[in-house]
Amino acid sequence: MAKWIAGVDIGGTTLSVGMVPVAGGRPRALRVDDTAGGRGGAAVVEQVCAMVRAAVDEVVCAEASGVEVAGVGVAAPGSLDRARGVVLESHNLGWFGLPLRDRVQAATGLPTVVENDANCAACGEWWQGAGRGFRSVLGITLGTGIGGGIVMDGRPFVGATGAAGEIGHMTVKYGGRRCTCGARGCLEAYASGPGIARTAVEGLAGGARSTLPELVAGDLGRITAATVHEAAVEGDAYATGVLAHTARMLAAGITSAVNLLGPDAVVVMGGVAEAGDLLFGPLAAELGRPRFRSAVDACTVVPGALRGTAGVVGAAGVFRLRTEET
Amino acid sequence: MAKWIAGVDIGGTTLSVGMVPVAGGRPRALRVDDTAGGRGGAAVVEQVCAMVRAAVDEVVCAEASGVEVAGVGVAAPGSLDRARGVVLESHNLGWFGLPLRDRVQAATGLPTVVENDANCAACGEWWQGAGRGFRSVLGITLGTGIGGGIVMDGRPFVGATGAAGEIGHMTVKYGGRRCTCGARGCLEAYASGPGIARTAVEGLAGGARSTLPELVAGDLGRITAATVHEAAVEGDAYATGVLAHTARMLAAGITSAVNLLGPDAVVVMGGVAEAGDLLFGPLAAELGRPRFRSAVDACTVVPGALRGTAGVVGAAGVFRLRTEET
Repeated sequence: MAKWIAGVDIGGTTLSVGMVPVAGGRPRALRVDDTAGGRGGAAVVEQVCAMVRAAVDEVVCAEASGVEVAGVGVAAPGSLDRARGVVLESHNLGWFGLPLRDRVQAATGLPTVVENDANCAACGEWWQGAGRGFRSVLGITLGTGIGGGIVMDGRPFVGATGAAGEIGHMTVKYGGRRCTCGARGCLEAYASGPGIARTAVEGLAGGARSTLPELVAGDLGRITAATVHEAAVEGDAYATGVLAHTARMLAAGITSAVNLLGPDAVVVMGGVAEAGDLLFGPLAAELGRPRFRSAVDACTVVPGALRGTAGVVGAAGVFRLRTEET
Repeated sequence: MAKWIAGVDIGGTTLSVGMVPVAGGRPRALRVDDTAGGRGGAAVVEQVCAMVRAAVDEVVCAEASGVEVAGVGVAAPGSLDRARGVVLESHNLGWFGLPLRDRVQAATGLPTVVENDANCAACGEWWQGAGRGFRSVLGITLGTGIGGGIVMDGRPFVGATGAAGEIGHMTVKYGGRRCTCGARGCLEAYASGPGIARTAVEGLAGGARSTLPELVAGDLGRITAATVHEAAVEGDAYATGVLAHTARMLAAGITSAVNLLGPDAVVVMGGVAEAGDLLFGPLAAELGRPRFRSAVDACTVVPGALRGTAGVVGAAGVFRLRTEET
């Protein structure tokens, strides 16, 4: 009888659930829905449990040899009380002190573990993705914000204070752009989706020539990282330059992190990473430039391999790890 | 019979040796000499062993109840092969592949352990100094360069690649000053001794009014961090401003490191830290400004307490740890 874990990834806009074999492998019975965030914590917990039940049923029907579900791993945004499985503070979802683990456990009847979403994504890539075989992985998720997760010797690393991994709020440009956190020059202000859009719009306001305004019918406020990527793919030199600039800022953040933390792999994930060579080409060039080399040379920087499912796989991986340990 | 460890701190210019009680406490029989670096590795090893023998003799004479010397802990600059106790690369001393551990062990007849100097300094402050009682300490030594060492749960943390802790080469100002490593905007280019002198000289070249030129008889090339400190102590507003600027750059590096690593304490050491309130005042103010707070709020930033002996104490501490483990 094969053993499975339900992996749940609760994002601010998207909720993903899939069944992951304890032995490793791709998630099965994957389902993705809009997060019912506007309707409060109870509604999201209900949605999670309904999706987990449906995913379990699907795997049970598909596997003639029988299925044992070991439990549920949940990737949650925001700060956590790990010992109690409580989401202390998630501004995206408006959760403050939500006892997520106990609620999911009670509703599904399955043992449940909760971990931070960025740590789960890093764990997923370490367990089954681009970080396989490395001792220590720094996972960077480039999206609306920048999430960072660290895996060391197969375990999520959260630091003495539980607050490690926040690479998005590393200062890469003293006195630079204001970040949503209030500081200036954070990596997130440059290499997140909105940061990239801002770089593009600032240059256009300065008179740069590009097809970008056409793509948004002249409304520069509608430019997103995806629009910039689209223009670059179509050969727009300005948009290509915006992605190259993003890559250089990202290289500053990555080398800072690698010099301090000494991981042997960095995995870059998230929507922005889908720009592929347009991002990773200039990133590799920048990492190769003259700089303090020992930590950088000992580290591999790669795109994520589990497009869209790193959180689900990693949440299941964290469940597996925690239950193996007890 | 009391048990002691000889702690050795090999710097590029200064060599310190002291006897540290295994149970903890201040180093005794402390001796400090100029490093015989120009005469090659063998001469320094000889110097180390002579100083260790003299320190052991001094403690033996002083302690009526008898002395047992457990071994020697050596803090060495540069990159190491820890398993073999070999200094792979120390540009300061011109050592490439020096089997330091075996040489010291053979010459003293005492079990010997070698660790990186910045890690030893952090371990010293964690064991007997300003980092006592914290779970995880990031030690920052501000001197000719910037050294970083990390202690986690009482152990030196070197990362998967052995190259962790290099906070001096974190990028704090993208596109900023050229660093000796070849990159631009490294923390070391701003908050090291030479970085501070450069900030001072640049401002004077730009027409700033200050008593600094008088202090160096008009030769701006002679300005050092110590001169800037001296002028600030005497009430020079420009010099005070240079130290405040240094503190703000340091705050950028510290918050970056704390956001990524999540330590519960940062200990700032080295000659530059002796500027005291002139540095730590503006540093605390800058850390208190609006920014991503969770990791910063959970972390204490303090000056080192073991002025000049953190490396000696920490080298002994690392010896104690390694031998306890085996």
